[in-house]
Amino acid sequence: MSSSEPGHHVDPARTGGSTHRDLLAQPHHDGSALYVSNPYPALGETVTVRVRVPRGADVTAVHVRLTPDAEPSFVDAVVEKQTATDTWWAADVVVHNPVTNYRFILEGGPTAYQWLNGTGLHLRDVPDAADFRITAFGAPPAWAGDAVVYQVFPDRFGRSAAQDDREVPEWAVPMQWDEPVRLEPDVIATQLYGGDLDGIVEHLDHLERLGVSVLYLTPFFPARSNHRYDASSFDRVDPVLGGDEALARLVDACHERGIRVLGDFTTNHTGDAHEWFVRAHQDPESEERGYYFWEDGDYVSWLGVKSLPKLNYESEGLRRRVFDDPDGVVRHWITGDSPLDGWRVDVANMTGRYRGQDLNGELARQMRGAMQQAAPDALLVGEHCHDYTQDAQGDGWHGVMNYAGFTRPVWTWLRDRGHAPKFLGSPLMVPRLGGHSVMETMREFAAMVPWSTVRHSFNLVGSHDTTRIRTLVGDDARQVEVAAGLLFTLPGIPMFTYGDEVGMEGEFGEDGRRPMPWDEQRWDSSLLEAYRGLIAARRGSVALREGGLRWVHADDDALVFLRESPTEVALVHCARHAHEPVTLDASRIPGVEGGEAKYGDAPEFDGGRMTLRAPGPQVRVWTWTVSE
Amino acid sequence: MSSSEPGHHVDPARTGGSTHRDLLAQPHHDGSALYVSNPYPALGETVTVRVRVPRGADVTAVHVRLTPDAEPSFVDAVVEKQTATDTWWAADVVVHNPVTNYRFILEGGPTAYQWLNGTGLHLRDVPDAADFRITAFGAPPAWAGDAVVYQVFPDRFGRSAAQDDREVPEWAVPMQWDEPVRLEPDVIATQLYGGDLDGIVEHLDHLERLGVSVLYLTPFFPARSNHRYDASSFDRVDPVLGGDEALARLVDACHERGIRVLGDFTTNHTGDAHEWFVRAHQDPESEERGYYFWEDGDYVSWLGVKSLPKLNYESEGLRRRVFDDPDGVVRHWITGDSPLDGWRVDVANMTGRYRGQDLNGELARQMRGAMQQAAPDALLVGEHCHDYTQDAQGDGWHGVMNYAGFTRPVWTWLRDRGHAPKFLGSPLMVPRLGGHSVMETMREFAAMVPWSTVRHSFNLVGSHDTTRIRTLVGDDARQVEVAAGLLFTLPGIPMFTYGDEVGMEGEFGEDGRRPMPWDEQRWDSSLLEAYRGLIAARRGSVALREGGLRWVHADDDALVFLRESPTEVALVHCARHAHEPVTLDASRIPGVEGGEAKYGDAPEFDGGRMTLRAPGPQVRVWTWTVSE
Repeated sequence: MSSSEPGHHVDPARTGGSTHRDLLAQPHHDGSALYVSNPYPALGETVTVRVRVPRGADVTAVHVRLTPDAEPSFVDAVVEKQTATDTWWAADVVVHNPVTNYRFILEGGPTAYQWLNGTGLHLRDVPDAADFRITAFGAPPAWAGDAVVYQVFPDRFGRSAAQDDREVPEWAVPMQWDEPVRLEPDVIATQLYGGDLDGIVEHLDHLERLGVSVLYLTPFFPARSNHRYDASSFDRVDPVLGGDEALARLVDACHERGIRVLGDFTTNHTGDAHEWFVRAHQDPESEERGYYFWEDGDYVSWLGVKSLPKLNYESEGLRRRVFDDPDGVVRHWITGDSPLDGWRVDVANMTGRYRGQDLNGELARQMRGAMQQAAPDALLVGEHCHDYTQDAQGDGWHGVMNYAGFTRPVWTWLRDRGHAPKFLGSPLMVPRLGGHSVMETMREFAAMVPWSTVRHSFNLVGSHDTTRIRTLVGDDARQVEVAAGLLFTLPGIPMFTYGDEVGMEGEFGEDGRRPMPWDEQRWDSSLLEAYRGLIAARRGSVALREGGLRWVHADDDALVFLRESPTEVALVHCARHAHEPVTLDASRIPGVEGGEAKYGDAPEFDGGRMTLRAPGPQVRVWTWTVSE
Repeated sequence: MSSSEPGHHVDPARTGGSTHRDLLAQPHHDGSALYVSNPYPALGETVTVRVRVPRGADVTAVHVRLTPDAEPSFVDAVVEKQTATDTWWAADVVVHNPVTNYRFILEGGPTAYQWLNGTGLHLRDVPDAADFRITAFGAPPAWAGDAVVYQVFPDRFGRSAAQDDREVPEWAVPMQWDEPVRLEPDVIATQLYGGDLDGIVEHLDHLERLGVSVLYLTPFFPARSNHRYDASSFDRVDPVLGGDEALARLVDACHERGIRVLGDFTTNHTGDAHEWFVRAHQDPESEERGYYFWEDGDYVSWLGVKSLPKLNYESEGLRRRVFDDPDGVVRHWITGDSPLDGWRVDVANMTGRYRGQDLNGELARQMRGAMQQAAPDALLVGEHCHDYTQDAQGDGWHGVMNYAGFTRPVWTWLRDRGHAPKFLGSPLMVPRLGGHSVMETMREFAAMVPWSTVRHSFNLVGSHDTTRIRTLVGDDARQVEVAAGLLFTLPGIPMFTYGDEVGMEGEFGEDGRRPMPWDEQRWDSSLLEAYRGLIAARRGSVALREGGLRWVHADDDALVFLRESPTEVALVHCARHAHEPVTLDASRIPGVEGGEAKYGDAPEFDGGRMTLRAPGPQVRVWTWTVSE
């Protein structure tokens, strides 16, 4: 089946190939500061939106199409400035609805006009799904846009001496730190290595040296498994982890180092040993009975896993205890003397959804509102194991775990032929695709949510739930550096799981939850240096943290893009393999010749041409300052 | 700018050209009876879904991906039967949520597997927006799927002698039937030709000879304009039209002939002379005050037109009077001795939407529910002047006026270079595009709603709000027949506006609202025969009424598709111009050689090849029976 067959929706830009060199000639808009005057307007405010039209593009006029109250409306754009390379058109648009979507009409070209939306130029009518959008839901916490997040699975990161004095819980199978993870079904969730919160405190130097700014802890609530997603209470920290005092010590120690801490809360379900569920199960007349779903006398559980009864938010009592009570779950842990800095929500995509019930958006908004009241500077990120675009319009979670629009496309580019990432029960591994497909999938998912959601979602190349990136890439460890290159340079909050930075392996989630090896002899030190270098590059570059995203080249083995802020531009070049040199017209990228290498080698410049070479897998970050 | 540039999202199938001949080799699924065992299941029921895989396609296994409660889930398909041309794979899926979306995974091909969703095959991940979907919202009225709808603007269709005895209302400028429509702003909405409901009764022979099965009346409520979208009451029929008794006579006369009647209700606004608004305006303490929006002491009106104050459905009282009261607007007119058979809703897309308020979906569901209780066999179609895909998932309106997914693509194919269709304030005419673009846009919009919405939406090539199709196509009247060919053969409810069938002209909405010329000398009689013939073809073909849609060829000037039901197949060939012969492999379309011409000429058959010729604009409908 060839890509030129009609009905086969793969355009040349999507199928790879190495002849596409003209992305620099494309008109461009995104949600970043160069293009949108105010990303967080109030309802009714006016925002200036701009489109960059490269010189030579056949564009004679520009309009903006809005859809206030779902009816089309048009605003003319005017030329705001002309540079050596581009004409900038600008238009003022009113944020009439909380989600205000818009696209540009570019007059000229082969068919009189073209639409420009988040997936690019279109000669024919396309639905609004990929229109640009501005939202009026208020700004996420300012620190989050700069964050680099390190995920720790508490049982497996560090074990303090205090653990030796604690009793092993009755459900647990005790393990020694150096023993391999056991994968038999009867122990996979109960083997306990005894990592604890003070053990994390002992290793905060590692985080600080890495340069991470946020520690994200998978659940610390008491439970009957090593993953603790089956909480038996939301009121206290598992004593096996050191209890409430240990969490306070950890949070305080992190805050002293300028590291923020996120918790992990399963809004979707509790454990079957949870105090609410025990009461609900014992007493059909109890208030807690209504916190769960009951069918034919039995309870409904998450994907049929009986230890995880699903919460039913038709219950106002449950909503109060979770969201609204000042000492309810959501508020309690983000207030007080040693507060968490926000929540990652487990199974956020399924929360409030069951058969005919869909309270998902309402609950995400309720949680956002509760957090806004209690701790306005706290971050809210939802786990979403699927297409999140309809659920992440910015009124609820600030962002999502971006498996669909980041992880999976990166995997399709970097997975070794022999290793299938295991995730979410798909009967098939992800395909191995060229860079064009990676770009197009990333672009399409990003196009369907507000820019703010893109910026505040966790990008990740793996997690405690997936194949480890080191295992996924196969033989060539340098491809982990390539994955990290994309992770730390694309828009979004980079999140990686403990041990990725030293080359920890694992075929799937549980297999990858190995105890962190603190014997540095077992570390891939060059990979660790790559992580440190890329994190430093990001933290040292406003363009990488806040800039827009303009793709300039994509072929099978190379991805090249610009991150552009009003004061700095970064050019990023990631190669999965050695590839033919990529040559770009440097005169169309003002300032590029005066840049500096933030990571990797410099590009070559010769007579106005810039050449990007890759003898093998590599990452290059090149930055330069610009004036507004 | 060429279509091969990356970022330019126009694949070869979308940009025209004549080399694409292999659509017959594409795996296919749609929502019709061949592919879905039950289009209207209850929540929780199991439905069998099938995919047709042409022999020779590289497909080794098929799975279905579902997303119950927004989490991916996979079901294996099995081979159900093999025919000379195709392998049919089938899988049972549970309708777990009211909107159950699904796509197929086809193993094999260049990248190990491909996704099949409503826009075709995809080698890379794409969002769910174009996934197939089954809904559990109950079946629309059975008659609606077979309907052919004729739109009448009461002031301009027929004038009975009784009108001579009625007083001209104070707001009206009386006109003679043969006078040209006046387009000056001060009379455009007030010139009154005096058409009335008994005048329609007098011309029902014309409808019956055409073969239409539904009469859709633009508003008949009293108002202060000729269009009556500014109702001064919803409780009675305008006396200028003959009052309630005349409507009863018209409905009864229609029903006697087997013709159903739809009304037109502006849920979005009333006129400023409406009895509710008068009270609201006079008495800030009145209940009716809350029926409208007030800002800075003034009322909010539709697009700023002061005569059309916008209704505010935060008011429960308004909701009762509109939807819930047994004698409220919605129920009153579809019950009783001479009931309407349903409603077309004016400005349905904007109803319940204003700034931060969005009750649109809720109100559509409320109206559907009210109708379901009062008259379960009544049809509900919403006007939607824009991308309706998010609003038309089947829980509210049964369908929409399909401007976005039908009218506009047809216009891009058939508009004359010199005539710009005027619609909805766009600063630009629609572009003129090739047949591929038409196919792709139709396919994309259809892919984003349930099949039931496609089948129960009004297809139209123009309305009382747009340029007349005769004017739009320019010099060659035969292209109106081509437009009608698409109108009466594609999935959806064909709706056309009075006079289109005789070649009535008009540059824009008001200009096209000319009095129906009853002097047959002024009719384009060959066009009328075309309308009659195409309507007869549709009414005589279960495939055209109920079949799925499989595109088999699209190039600049020709569109060819199959409508396939379990018992009959129709092949449709529409040409906008003379074109090179289209040759298809007849052996891949079982039964085609034994067909009969339902409209136009027969295809040519020679040694297993079928050739479709077009010496100029034309339509060909060829049908044959098949066994299940």
